[in-house]
Amino acid sequence: MNRKTKWFSLSAVIIALIAVMLVSAFPHQQIATAGIDNGYTGKQAKYVFFFIGDGMGMPQVNAAEIFKGTLESDNKMHKGKLGFTVFPHQGMQTTHSNNTFITESAAAGTALATGQKTNNDILGMDATKTVKLKTMAELAKEKGMKVGIVSNVSIDHATPGAFYAHEPTRKNYYEIGLALANSGFNYFAGGGLLAPTGPKQDKPSVFDLAKNNGYKVVNTQEEFNNLSNQDSKVFAIAPKLAAEAAMPYDIDRGSGQVTLADFTKKGIDLLDNSQGFFMMVEGGKIDWSSHANDAATTVRDILAFDDAINEALKFYAKHPNETLIIVTGDHETGGMTIGFAGTEYETFFSKINKQDLSFEEFDKKIKTYRETVGAQYANLNDWLPILANEFGLTDITDYDKTRLNDALAASMVEPKKRTKDPNSSLLYGNYEPFSVTVTHILNQKAGIGWTTYAHTGVAIPVYAQGIGSELFQGYYDNTDIAKKIMNIMGVKQ
Amino acid sequence: MNRKTKWFSLSAVIIALIAVMLVSAFPHQQIATAGIDNGYTGKQAKYVFFFIGDGMGMPQVNAAEIFKGTLESDNKMHKGKLGFTVFPHQGMQTTHSNNTFITESAAAGTALATGQKTNNDILGMDATKTVKLKTMAELAKEKGMKVGIVSNVSIDHATPGAFYAHEPTRKNYYEIGLALANSGFNYFAGGGLLAPTGPKQDKPSVFDLAKNNGYKVVNTQEEFNNLSNQDSKVFAIAPKLAAEAAMPYDIDRGSGQVTLADFTKKGIDLLDNSQGFFMMVEGGKIDWSSHANDAATTVRDILAFDDAINEALKFYAKHPNETLIIVTGDHETGGMTIGFAGTEYETFFSKINKQDLSFEEFDKKIKTYRETVGAQYANLNDWLPILANEFGLTDITDYDKTRLNDALAASMVEPKKRTKDPNSSLLYGNYEPFSVTVTHILNQKAGIGWTTYAHTGVAIPVYAQGIGSELFQGYYDNTDIAKKIMNIMGVKQ
Repeated sequence: MNRKTKWFSLSAVIIALIAVMLVSAFPHQQIATAGIDNGYTGKQAKYVFFFIGDGMGMPQVNAAEIFKGTLESDNKMHKGKLGFTVFPHQGMQTTHSNNTFITESAAAGTALATGQKTNNDILGMDATKTVKLKTMAELAKEKGMKVGIVSNVSIDHATPGAFYAHEPTRKNYYEIGLALANSGFNYFAGGGLLAPTGPKQDKPSVFDLAKNNGYKVVNTQEEFNNLSNQDSKVFAIAPKLAAEAAMPYDIDRGSGQVTLADFTKKGIDLLDNSQGFFMMVEGGKIDWSSHANDAATTVRDILAFDDAINEALKFYAKHPNETLIIVTGDHETGGMTIGFAGTEYETFFSKINKQDLSFEEFDKKIKTYRETVGAQYANLNDWLPILANEFGLTDITDYDKTRLNDALAASMVEPKKRTKDPNSSLLYGNYEPFSVTVTHILNQKAGIGWTTYAHTGVAIPVYAQGIGSELFQGYYDNTDIAKKIMNIMGVKQ
Repeated sequence: MNRKTKWFSLSAVIIALIAVMLVSAFPHQQIATAGIDNGYTGKQAKYVFFFIGDGMGMPQVNAAEIFKGTLESDNKMHKGKLGFTVFPHQGMQTTHSNNTFITESAAAGTALATGQKTNNDILGMDATKTVKLKTMAELAKEKGMKVGIVSNVSIDHATPGAFYAHEPTRKNYYEIGLALANSGFNYFAGGGLLAPTGPKQDKPSVFDLAKNNGYKVVNTQEEFNNLSNQDSKVFAIAPKLAAEAAMPYDIDRGSGQVTLADFTKKGIDLLDNSQGFFMMVEGGKIDWSSHANDAATTVRDILAFDDAINEALKFYAKHPNETLIIVTGDHETGGMTIGFAGTEYETFFSKINKQDLSFEEFDKKIKTYRETVGAQYANLNDWLPILANEFGLTDITDYDKTRLNDALAASMVEPKKRTKDPNSSLLYGNYEPFSVTVTHILNQKAGIGWTTYAHTGVAIPVYAQGIGSELFQGYYDNTDIAKKIMNIMGVKQ
């Protein structure tokens, strides 16, 4: 080897060593600069799944793991595994909005969809309500990717709406519906619309406008089954809806009824194409049942949400080098904890796995009772067999009876005539007093506590798998999640 | 360039490329196999700091950030930064013990010190109470590193004890004291001992045994100041102790009184040597005030804990390539949440920054009142100026007054004569009824809720900086933390 080639060899080794050092230092830097991420030079993800469990904080996830354990084994220390809790990369996100530490879902959805903070109640616009913020779904569409928006609550609700609408208030349901019809996105699925003909029901139907814009609007099982990859614009609504144009809670779902997983699977079938796709899937009722402090309904909806995630994992298995899956929440709801003053260091989650209906369905029974039996003849004894059958609640103490009797009396008053004193506000929130007392007592016996009927401000977990997922480790803000996803998708605001 | 040298150059490039691929793949693998970590081949840490905030879950950390914000700025959305919440690598740990999802501190301490699960109440032994589990502190000593154990609660308490003692129950305080005296560790500091002469006070003093074993036992400020790197075995006790041989809560600390940060700094001075050191520092009273549902005392103790961590960071700045700092908790305590039914989406943390004493000090005032005024003449009006001055609690509603009057009446009963009904158990736990009601009302006005007087089973955060810290990303078990630290220290059980 002559001097020159020796030098050449040596320089190759030095360059290689420098490369090794750079690459080994690089993952740390990416994570340390969470929220900037302009440095992402990794491979772009062609297929992006963004799963948002509304109201799903760490307590909800841990409760679902323990609950799943009770379904799988009699060993009281067995914990179930969820598809997403074993994802290789995980982090935590702060969820505060621009104006409160406790966000609501429009501000949180806007942060997750656009990477920008806004005030509570504002959807896809900045805090001044003047600037429309472009969403990752819109950017994906501009890039030529197909786009799907799936939710088991109404599809004009805050979280799905944050991905395609820009309104000064999330309550502009008709305008959000118009944005949907004009979005050009390829797949909307799950719940229906809250105000398809406007608040006064005097406007052109959003469904008709969507049809005019080329959407196939389907709401029967047969039509849904017949959808194919040739249908380039679809709005699929669950054949059977519950209150507020949402799909039923999973605990109330009849056999054969379409699930969030079915809508996710169908979305994959319809959106799969050579240009890639972006799909947001919301488990929206985890939030609603957490608001109502109903743990059994909450954890069963998380398992249904996990089923939807497992559909994405099946797709991932076929395209591991082109797919990114993110699973997170938008905030925690209810101040749920795994620990209650009365149960101290023990938990008894098998106590909530006998519950077979949601608080919402139980509310209906109470309403019927109020209208047929009424305050004068109301008697807790009428309810004890129902509590045993529907909730597995049999070990009712004298103290429980006092609480149940008070709550039953409160529930026998017409909702409009109920007076709001501080004590009943704390005990019942705006919920049916007897219903929320039953779930409180049952949850407390299981070792589950709640502190609020609203959201909380504690950081929540993020789970990531696939291309670019290493960016989601560490502790960062909800706006950073959007920025990271956009970077990995290769789109720019 | 001839053919041979060309090939040589090319092979160097290929080898380099393979190296790049290996190294870039490696960090992912390490994290994906969390809990095994046998693959750790990175640089060993010469200096290891293990900070354990007892009872410190995500709600406590987030509350401390928001609280610090109120001390720093009038901007209600300003959040304070803690030294450890900006660490580059963060993860979440599950905390369950071998027999419950809600651990207590002996089982959690054992997991963190040894990497092995055990049952609640067992210290440094397996669940059969027959096998002594070697701790990372003992292994560090065997390796030739110096070892320090620091806590602001008694140094024979579960968390510090888990690093040097092996007892079938954490309540064997005398035996734990003997283990301390015989440990050969170089530095014990903070609180005192709970039973230095045994439960019947008839045994040889642990302090004397420690002295016989070469320990310099100091408990005055002057002696503490005079300690030097030449003192190879030290047991330093805070000159002024509060209940249960613990240092006072930081909120009660008099000016000039020694702090957890002082003990940490002194530990660094004493332990620094060419063979390296391991130091465990516990913020032990975060747990105690969380048990009592006293948020202001809790967050101030977290800030004091953060001050101690900042001492380690100063050392880290001098030895960045040889030091590992881990900060975590052993479990969450109290079911704390940032969100309360009465305050909904708002928080008002400035309401808790006027509180100037702990529940423990307030309990003393109630005791005096009970013994001087008594049940017959007790009157809430006597307390209103005190609540205003010591807690900043002035906006007392009629509903608050009802709760306060009930609690004051309950507190006027001698503790031993109090009957336990389910309602008072839930309202007051085992705490002074008036005291816990005052902190509940104040915390709730700030938007902070609690669900239990015990621990909870929700996963908690882990913060890591320095050599090997990338291993602490993701979601893993508390036992994995011990295994990771041992691997990075280069010790084996």
